[in-house]
Amino acid sequence: MSAARCVAVCGSATATADELAAAERIGELLARAGVTLVCGGMGGVMDAAARGCAAAGGTSIGVLPGVDRSGASAYLSVVLPTGLGEARNALVVRAADAVIAVGGEFGTLSEIALALKMGKRVVGMDTWSFERRRSAADPVERAGSPDEAVALALAEHGPRA
Amino acid sequence: MSAARCVAVCGSATATADELAAAERIGELLARAGVTLVCGGMGGVMDAAARGCAAAGGTSIGVLPGVDRSGASAYLSVVLPTGLGEARNALVVRAADAVIAVGGEFGTLSEIALALKMGKRVVGMDTWSFERRRSAADPVERAGSPDEAVALALAEHGPRA
Amino acid sequence: MSAARCVAVCGSATATADELAAAERIGELLARAGVTLVCGGMGGVMDAAARGCAAAGGTSIGVLPGVDRSGASAYLSVVLPTGLGEARNALVVRAADAVIAVGGEFGTLSEIALALKMGKRVVGMDTWSFERRRSAADPVERAGSPDEAVALALAEHGPRA
Amino acid sequence: MSAARCVAVCGSATATADELAAAERIGELLARAGVTLVCGGMGGVMDAAARGCAAAGGTSIGVLPGVDRSGASAYLSVVLPTGLGEARNALVVRAADAVIAVGGEFGTLSEIALALKMGKRVVGMDTWSFERRRSAADPVERAGSPDEAVALALAEHGPRA
Repeated sequence: MSAARCVAVCGSATATADELAAAERIGELLARAGVTLVCGGMGGVMDAAARGCAAAGGTSIGVLPGVDRSGASAYLSVVLPTGLGEARNALVVRAADAVIAVGGEFGTLSEIALALKMGKRVVGMDTWSFERRRSAADPVERAGSPDEAVALALAEHGPRA
Repeated sequence: MSAARCVAVCGSATATADELAAAERIGELLARAGVTLVCGGMGGVMDAAARGCAAAGGTSIGVLPGVDRSGASAYLSVVLPTGLGEARNALVVRAADAVIAVGGEFGTLSEIALALKMGKRVVGMDTWSFERRRSAADPVERAGSPDEAVALALAEHGPRA
Repeated sequence: MSAARCVAVCGSATATADELAAAERIGELLARAGVTLVCGGMGGVMDAAARGCAAAGGTSIGVLPGVDRSGASAYLSVVLPTGLGEARNALVVRAADAVIAVGGEFGTLSEIALALKMGKRVVGMDTWSFERRRSAADPVERAGSPDEAVALALAEHGPRA
Repeated sequence: MSAARCVAVCGSATATADELAAAERIGELLARAGVTLVCGGMGGVMDAAARGCAAAGGTSIGVLPGVDRSGASAYLSVVLPTGLGEARNALVVRAADAVIAVGGEFGTLSEIALALKMGKRVVGMDTWSFERRRSAADPVERAGSPDEAVALALAEHGPRA
């Protein structure tokens, strides 16, 4: 049993077919686990995750950068326009107990970094790798499939040490 | 038929029995209307509105000031910790098509003012009055009951001119 | 001697000649007192306060709602575009030890309310009045002149109780 | 001649002696160029950059995560407590025309990513490297010295394409 009640799914508004399929499956699995999905609320990976979540009867929230619902995924349970622009990326990961990144561009990289800064668990599927000089371990837990990504995100070992 | 899809209920964490009863009824009526309720997510008026919403099977979201779920109402469908402190007040009203204020202290006054600044409709029940020199009309639509408050918030005349 | 190191001057982008003259004088007096001026950084009262501050060799910062410097006063020492929209109002007052409101519209009312919520001293010149049922004292210290406003803002009696 | 009027210096609160020396020199060079320095306002690289800036008579602003001045560098011209937590990272880079990252941990990585997302030029000194599958070019311009870092940040070729 997992303590995670909310998982963020991060990725780009323009994504490959593989990324979209993975995001949709992740959304479905989170819904089945009774976990709320939070995302940036726009297209691509965000939309696919919300679609998978909705298909499985789950609850999803989209935290939008704009002042209104323009561009929001139609599959979200709750749409939250923030008017904060890129600063909303901090809110997406703040609200989550764990973060799953699927592919992604610079926005996703910022969400991974902010989540790690906040001490949250980050699971990655075919997403950014990064390093500094002496960094020993990869701070991102790498998953090879949507099922593995969700299992890692919900595994009962608390936030990243 | 109303275009409103999301209504904010604002009020204090410490409220009178009358305010709590009004907020609970407002939450119930919004749920019955199929409208999502957004609020600050804490106790008092916020908790009562979420409770009424939940009892009627509705969807509610609490936009919290803190970095985690501490102090959140147990009746919310979705809890969004923001870590933004008082700046989250702008998010509560930004997400809404209309705002209903019940009683309230300075935080509620700030939400009324921010909503008016954003051009949103504001309905008040026993809440702040305010004026400047030559202000002619009261920018807040005053309601005498929860039912009237919800009717005004959902009335089809678009955002405040 | 005052502990105030930063005072916010709040008011509308469209202001009367009297309000502009008062704001300019307030900016000048704050500069002479060695206090940093913070404001919303746009026109009207904000621009006039920055102009007065600059003329007296003071330091001013404008916390802008937009993503760039568009519309910023040319008299500011430092311009900080935030991209946060109205949520930036919380930052303007958060940064200040005390707030002086000159005239103003709904945005100014939100800044007064947010400052009071944060427990900061608020001084008003011909600005909003507001009340609830049983409110005894006016939480805003009213000033009849720019000199009185600055004296009140810098008076050594700490934040509002 | 450069159009840059504000450059962000990003790095960790705990930094090596080399990083501190580099940051101090960068602050000094930015001040000499008449450019405003913006940073996160705390210790380590931020404090060193502000110190170098102050020594050369420049203007610096620290955008703090907390609600007050606790932990702020004593060398800043202007201190702006935001109360936004990690979301303030978006403000640090939003305010800048270009970003120089010196070393850094996850917070710095988030600032690099947010700046790239915003289309801003990013110069790095011994900081994060990162990649995705097919990424061809490194989006960060790498500098081997403080002088080179400032020259790149101020070079007249506009924001990153």
